[in-house]
Amino acid sequence: MKVVTFEHNGRQGFGALKGNGIVDLTDAFGSAKAFLEGGEANLSKANDLIERGDASISVDDVRIRPPVPDTHKLLCLAGNYQSHVEEGGGTFIGKEKTWPRVFMKPPSTTIIGQNDTIILPRNAQKIDWECELAVVIGKHARFVEPDEGLDYVAGYTVIIDVSERSLEVPDAREPQDGDEWFDWLNGKWFDTFAPCGPYLTLTDEIHDPQGLPIKLSVNGVVRQDGNTGQMTYSVAELVSWSSNLVTLEPGDIIATGTLAGVGATTGEFLKDGDRVEGEIEGIGVLVCDVKAE
Amino acid sequence: MKVVTFEHNGRQGFGALKGNGIVDLTDAFGSAKAFLEGGEANLSKANDLIERGDASISVDDVRIRPPVPDTHKLLCLAGNYQSHVEEGGGTFIGKEKTWPRVFMKPPSTTIIGQNDTIILPRNAQKIDWECELAVVIGKHARFVEPDEGLDYVAGYTVIIDVSERSLEVPDAREPQDGDEWFDWLNGKWFDTFAPCGPYLTLTDEIHDPQGLPIKLSVNGVVRQDGNTGQMTYSVAELVSWSSNLVTLEPGDIIATGTLAGVGATTGEFLKDGDRVEGEIEGIGVLVCDVKAE
Repeated sequence: MKVVTFEHNGRQGFGALKGNGIVDLTDAFGSAKAFLEGGEANLSKANDLIERGDASISVDDVRIRPPVPDTHKLLCLAGNYQSHVEEGGGTFIGKEKTWPRVFMKPPSTTIIGQNDTIILPRNAQKIDWECELAVVIGKHARFVEPDEGLDYVAGYTVIIDVSERSLEVPDAREPQDGDEWFDWLNGKWFDTFAPCGPYLTLTDEIHDPQGLPIKLSVNGVVRQDGNTGQMTYSVAELVSWSSNLVTLEPGDIIATGTLAGVGATTGEFLKDGDRVEGEIEGIGVLVCDVKAE
Repeated sequence: MKVVTFEHNGRQGFGALKGNGIVDLTDAFGSAKAFLEGGEANLSKANDLIERGDASISVDDVRIRPPVPDTHKLLCLAGNYQSHVEEGGGTFIGKEKTWPRVFMKPPSTTIIGQNDTIILPRNAQKIDWECELAVVIGKHARFVEPDEGLDYVAGYTVIIDVSERSLEVPDAREPQDGDEWFDWLNGKWFDTFAPCGPYLTLTDEIHDPQGLPIKLSVNGVVRQDGNTGQMTYSVAELVSWSSNLVTLEPGDIIATGTLAGVGATTGEFLKDGDRVEGEIEGIGVLVCDVKAE
């Protein structure tokens, strides 16, 4: 099942895809997050409604919104593909000798949806793309074991972890230990820097999240091309590790890290007028245009 | 004016303090965040209601909740008091030569309120206290100049930035560049690690946030004792810098950093049964007990 949050005739709705239409599930569940909070029972109720219901709204007539518009936590992985660690000049010392590196973006101001615009802020210099598999949590999770990790996943979507590589700081600053790290972190936070969507593909359609072709293109030129099977820590392991740090809540998102092919490697970055497309097989194609502020 | 979010007779309410009672403003504004979103107009409406209304609910009869229970962003400052930088072995190179260091906590799972319990998680080792002035944003803010920073502040409360100093990681891990930073960051995120409250004191009562005595005690023993005037970057400057990174929204919180006297300096940390009190003059006394999971 693919569920979608949309705007139609001036109101926000929630529904499921059926052919090229949407079965409106707003009255039944309210919102994506409320749907997820209801767990398995809602899933079977939704299946019934989709089977019996008409796809009364055309996908072409709606504005698609982010799959979970009111996500509490947007957790992101740094360096979770060997190919990306190595293109950045790092050394991959082996999964057993290291540990997932998790940071956060502010969801309310970074998350945008399908056909929304990535804004290059006026104080930006080098803004990069990072296509990632986004995991959407379905159940409260705390101290989950790796082999149970997937039980807490509701579904998947595409996310682009847009990243400023060269945060603008005052000329007078003198280098100090830690500057680089805070600049890197803060460069992840700008408004619109987490395009996400177009839909939420539930786990009934994706049994194994580690074998999905993933690709990003800018203006039609493929920049990232790989497979989610190349992740260092699997989705199940990332759910487990994250749940040791925080209680994961329905609707929380884990962006699982990016693969080789980011702009920083060649020195090419996003610019006004670009079109970015992130695609994961079986999940969808996320398209956003880029505009300088 | 001091406003408060509370539970009373099984429902969540919003009101203002009047003597030892609460004037119920739930019907007028809904919630603290909705109140803040209405800006100046709501402030004068609230003043009228408080003047005319009775404090119909006793403070003793409610469970006080966090001042803004549905905060979108909880931004926190690292190293914003020279005394704390130096007690940790760092060197303060001067405000002009550096820049604010901002990180985030996940608000939905870290923020707790007055008389709530700080939980020491089972994978914790060295959990520390950090009393801080919390700034609550009143208006959307982006690229705000430092001299306008205070115009975007709705009020203030007390926050304790509870921090795990020694994140538990697998024995097999080999040290890598950056480990220290991610461990430090992740150690800030555990559930209940951002007690906040008891009330939100609006700016009509606090004209200058840089001259407030601030103090933290554990089991009645004073551990931190200073003044918000000792901050390196002022509230106005922190609002400005943060607004260059993200759009600040009504109800967002900036925790402005802590002063000397944290547990890491002496090697004493929080333990089961402790009582922590954070106090800022004119704002309030925040009290939480500590419990091991």
